[in-house]
Amino acid sequence: MTKDVDKNVDIARRGLLGGSAKLAALAGAGSVAGLTGASILYSGTTEAAGKNSGVAPGDLDDYYGFWSSGQTGELRIVGIPSMRELMRVPIFNICSATGWGRTNESRKILTEGLLPETRKFLESRGGVWTNGDLHHPHMSFTDGTYDGRYVFMNDKANTRVARVRCDVMKCDKIIEIPNAADIHGLRPQKYPRTGYVFANGEHRVPIPNDGRDLDNPENYHAIFTAIDGDAMEIAWQVMVDGNLDNCDTDYQGLYAFSTCYNSEEAVNLAGMMSSEQDWVVVFDLKRIEAAVKKGDFKKMGGVPVIDGRKGSKYTRYIPVSNSPHGCNTAPDGRHVVINGKLSPTVTVLDVRRLPDLFNDRIKPRDAVVAEPELGLGPLHTAFDGKGNAFTTLFLDSQAVKWNIQNAIDAYNGKDVDPILEKIDVQYQPGHNHTSMGETKDADGKWLVSLNKFSKDRFINVGPLKPENEQLIDISGSNMTIVHDGSTFAEPHDCIIVRTDIVNPRSVWKPDDPMWADATAQAEKDGVRLYSDSRIIRDGNKVRVYMWSLAPTFSMEKFTVKQGDEITVYVSNNDKIDDLSHGFTLANYGIAMEIGPQATSSITFTADRPGVHWFYCQWFCHALHMEMRGRMLVEPA
Amino acid sequence: MTKDVDKNVDIARRGLLGGSAKLAALAGAGSVAGLTGASILYSGTTEAAGKNSGVAPGDLDDYYGFWSSGQTGELRIVGIPSMRELMRVPIFNICSATGWGRTNESRKILTEGLLPETRKFLESRGGVWTNGDLHHPHMSFTDGTYDGRYVFMNDKANTRVARVRCDVMKCDKIIEIPNAADIHGLRPQKYPRTGYVFANGEHRVPIPNDGRDLDNPENYHAIFTAIDGDAMEIAWQVMVDGNLDNCDTDYQGLYAFSTCYNSEEAVNLAGMMSSEQDWVVVFDLKRIEAAVKKGDFKKMGGVPVIDGRKGSKYTRYIPVSNSPHGCNTAPDGRHVVINGKLSPTVTVLDVRRLPDLFNDRIKPRDAVVAEPELGLGPLHTAFDGKGNAFTTLFLDSQAVKWNIQNAIDAYNGKDVDPILEKIDVQYQPGHNHTSMGETKDADGKWLVSLNKFSKDRFINVGPLKPENEQLIDISGSNMTIVHDGSTFAEPHDCIIVRTDIVNPRSVWKPDDPMWADATAQAEKDGVRLYSDSRIIRDGNKVRVYMWSLAPTFSMEKFTVKQGDEITVYVSNNDKIDDLSHGFTLANYGIAMEIGPQATSSITFTADRPGVHWFYCQWFCHALHMEMRGRMLVEPA
Repeated sequence: MTKDVDKNVDIARRGLLGGSAKLAALAGAGSVAGLTGASILYSGTTEAAGKNSGVAPGDLDDYYGFWSSGQTGELRIVGIPSMRELMRVPIFNICSATGWGRTNESRKILTEGLLPETRKFLESRGGVWTNGDLHHPHMSFTDGTYDGRYVFMNDKANTRVARVRCDVMKCDKIIEIPNAADIHGLRPQKYPRTGYVFANGEHRVPIPNDGRDLDNPENYHAIFTAIDGDAMEIAWQVMVDGNLDNCDTDYQGLYAFSTCYNSEEAVNLAGMMSSEQDWVVVFDLKRIEAAVKKGDFKKMGGVPVIDGRKGSKYTRYIPVSNSPHGCNTAPDGRHVVINGKLSPTVTVLDVRRLPDLFNDRIKPRDAVVAEPELGLGPLHTAFDGKGNAFTTLFLDSQAVKWNIQNAIDAYNGKDVDPILEKIDVQYQPGHNHTSMGETKDADGKWLVSLNKFSKDRFINVGPLKPENEQLIDISGSNMTIVHDGSTFAEPHDCIIVRTDIVNPRSVWKPDDPMWADATAQAEKDGVRLYSDSRIIRDGNKVRVYMWSLAPTFSMEKFTVKQGDEITVYVSNNDKIDDLSHGFTLANYGIAMEIGPQATSSITFTADRPGVHWFYCQWFCHALHMEMRGRMLVEPA
Repeated sequence: MTKDVDKNVDIARRGLLGGSAKLAALAGAGSVAGLTGASILYSGTTEAAGKNSGVAPGDLDDYYGFWSSGQTGELRIVGIPSMRELMRVPIFNICSATGWGRTNESRKILTEGLLPETRKFLESRGGVWTNGDLHHPHMSFTDGTYDGRYVFMNDKANTRVARVRCDVMKCDKIIEIPNAADIHGLRPQKYPRTGYVFANGEHRVPIPNDGRDLDNPENYHAIFTAIDGDAMEIAWQVMVDGNLDNCDTDYQGLYAFSTCYNSEEAVNLAGMMSSEQDWVVVFDLKRIEAAVKKGDFKKMGGVPVIDGRKGSKYTRYIPVSNSPHGCNTAPDGRHVVINGKLSPTVTVLDVRRLPDLFNDRIKPRDAVVAEPELGLGPLHTAFDGKGNAFTTLFLDSQAVKWNIQNAIDAYNGKDVDPILEKIDVQYQPGHNHTSMGETKDADGKWLVSLNKFSKDRFINVGPLKPENEQLIDISGSNMTIVHDGSTFAEPHDCIIVRTDIVNPRSVWKPDDPMWADATAQAEKDGVRLYSDSRIIRDGNKVRVYMWSLAPTFSMEKFTVKQGDEITVYVSNNDKIDDLSHGFTLANYGIAMEIGPQATSSITFTADRPGVHWFYCQWFCHALHMEMRGRMLVEPA
């Protein structure tokens, strides 16, 4: 095996060499191209300074950025153009501060959508996954633009899709995707509304994956999934050839697209690289819906699975160069850009040709209307709504601005250069995104380049370096980098949403469904949340109901017996903006957030006797430190 | 009980009212005082813009900020003056990205310093704490200034003290503090070196706290601990009266100081507020060391505990107004500022009077040389090294600059106002800190105000709001706010260290002690890490050794049996800056970081049969997605 590996490494190294050399060159030449605009960052007051993001202390941002955190597992909310990180929303991670993963409310969300075999697997592992790999956050759409209801996101590590409620900016649903392995690309339906959330199972595995079939890659499958984004349930799945990568949808509600690499269906690097071409798969949503209706599917893992492998009437396979990656529909509603990764080209499809393709009136490549050569390592493309596209060049460490119509004209033989401008970014960009850029309301103001390496760009913080998310002003005729943003792993992808679209609450409604179980239990116990302080003993189960009002809990102590199973419910009576409380039970590993007018609960066994202080860990008052009480545990 | 609580709330509300009214007023008047300098943020290129932090894209910061994250449990590294978050270092939290809490290396660090009863308690809870409350990060000192070796920090939630190695910016030691409950204030010895790390046990509990004595607060105790910062072992402890809050040390290596609130030793808010005075406890280090040497202590929980309660020769109790909070030694080496919290005053001690105090030649209050009235809610004080002090006023939402000598002169009857300037901050500041401000090298350039509420300062992100850390330029005659930094809970405290003091490595040494166990096991197995790929079966224990070199793992697959206990060791052969790899085993909850030239390992039971892909989750190469392999688990 060692020999094969060496061969793989050798192949791979050759691929990197161009990039590495380039990178080394850039480190010295950083001030030449990309940095011409660098020194004018944030110079909000002086006209002379030209382009700037102009967010001074006290100024508010124009956009919400919803940011992936990759393997950190959380969703981040970033203000644009200040690039300030405004909030972390725990999703697939365990959060020490909020109690996400520990509270009863979060554990319900983290477990209720899991498959039974996964729930069983987690039994001896604390009951919940403690890691995730969140790549692609995308907002729900209505009529081709963001509607401010939800943000959806994938987990590649443990094959999940999650949803965040934008009214409170908390995750309310997580589901595991059956049959698939390791969800990668994710996009919501743009039209007429979301509707579907499309999710790519990247890795090919046997179905069922229970060990009866192990080392026969020819029997492995990749699964494309359509989730009902309202119910957060599987609508249907399609089995396809190749490894599913990224996806997008049209503005007509007719088609979805997925890039596929590894059409060779190999299991090592040399094999995956052996063919010169891979493909993009196009899914015909109307045909698939009709098939589901009339039963042309196999039920697998409890959901309808349609056979969309090559030759199927439900899909078309459009050949593109080796290992296409990003998949981005333009705001013009017509063009879809497939990014080449290992090819210096991007391939532009015209969605108006797809009906003919599905009716076999044209060949797959006839859907291609342009294929400009942009540079080395094109990964993702964003749009300004004015006919221009911005593509990240991973190996070149550049952002390239090009004109879609020019590219089409050039493809048709006209002597025109689609490339308008290239600037250096620092370094190796992956995803990029423009303000409102994946909607019909793309406004061409800001471009974010999410760069995988920061190297010399910040003071040295040890072997583990931050990434670098750069903000680029694209409102003028030239691109200008106005901000370098160091960030923890990994700003994999992001979206940028106008503030008027997102209208969160500042105070919870006391009857929010998030703690419906607590409300129901309190009712059964004859306890009024937010006003009663009560201890209910029910065998060895003890329910402790208290409320908080800065700077006190409504109970200064409660007494239980060693071995009791305790559930503590805390209802926050404060109604003031920003007045969250916490409940930390020291030396018991218990901590949770309770937002204004919210209720949180947590269940644990009191198997440690003695005096244990609980205290408020979300700063609330001048007497915050005095906001505490005692749990007295009588020894068994 | 409800009645008592209502009384408490009433008392507390009265305390907040001043602040609340003020806050409401400020929300409207935000542009008046604190924001006069606001619009000149970051205007690095134009002289006209005056004060600015001047960090343009590509520019490097002048200081490392080491930042608490409060209940989030991590250490943050922030660039100053850019205020960019450069790194998160997991300490008391579980980190999805790095595998902190899951890898064998991190679990050793997280468990080896725990008390046996805690280890037992955690057995049924996954073996490690999953939360923490990190308040105070402080660097090791040599001769009164930072020496770049370590950063130490407390955990209030689970009574721990941790250490971060600054050569690699990773946590290498965590210890639980016996006898104490809920570590709060923490400071390292400044002179001659660290040496001791002093840690305050905030909450009073019975000793031993095993349930034999529960609801008798008069038998509860608070414990002050001196840790040997080199060995990370308890040197000695002192039992004191009152609740220990913050602490600091002198520049002579003779004394340590702790503020104490709740001298009433009450267990509810009304009780804690009943007395008009609390105190600061002074510890005589030489006398205590002599006592430890000659055996004048009780051994409790395995460590020497000295009785330092009132009347002891090892301590002195200096009365100050109700509920003092911050405790800050000035860079002049003479003055210690005790911050009033509920009193509008700070109390200044002169360390040169302490020998006379311990020798009973003067009374406790004779150590006080100034007590200026600064405003409402003074919490913490920072210094510019030029004789001035900057104190946060929590209730007033202000930073006040005052002159120490003026305050002394005023205390001595001279008609001089110590207050030089006040500016509004947004809102309710807790800790503050100046560049190098807690060392003899305080340089008077930057002040950070860590504000507990952000309210209207950023676009609305739902019921949970960010905090606001503001950067203030103090190099001129006036304070100027140059940056509003939204941040997740909670920037409780921070230090600001010149970059020349901190010199981390970019690539690990392959023989680093962090993975000494892996190195030893590989040696036993006859495996050379970084060059061999081997599977060792040892009964039902399977050790899988592989290495990584972008974009491949040295094994494309390995096969095990359901129920086997697997340990995967990955050694990263890449030697390039910033080239970290990851190992995620999908649908097994496994993910870890492997830095350049590092080795990481993880142990788990293969109780899920089938094909499971492992992949690299730290972006490494254009073919990063192809960097993967399979674990084949044969069914039992």
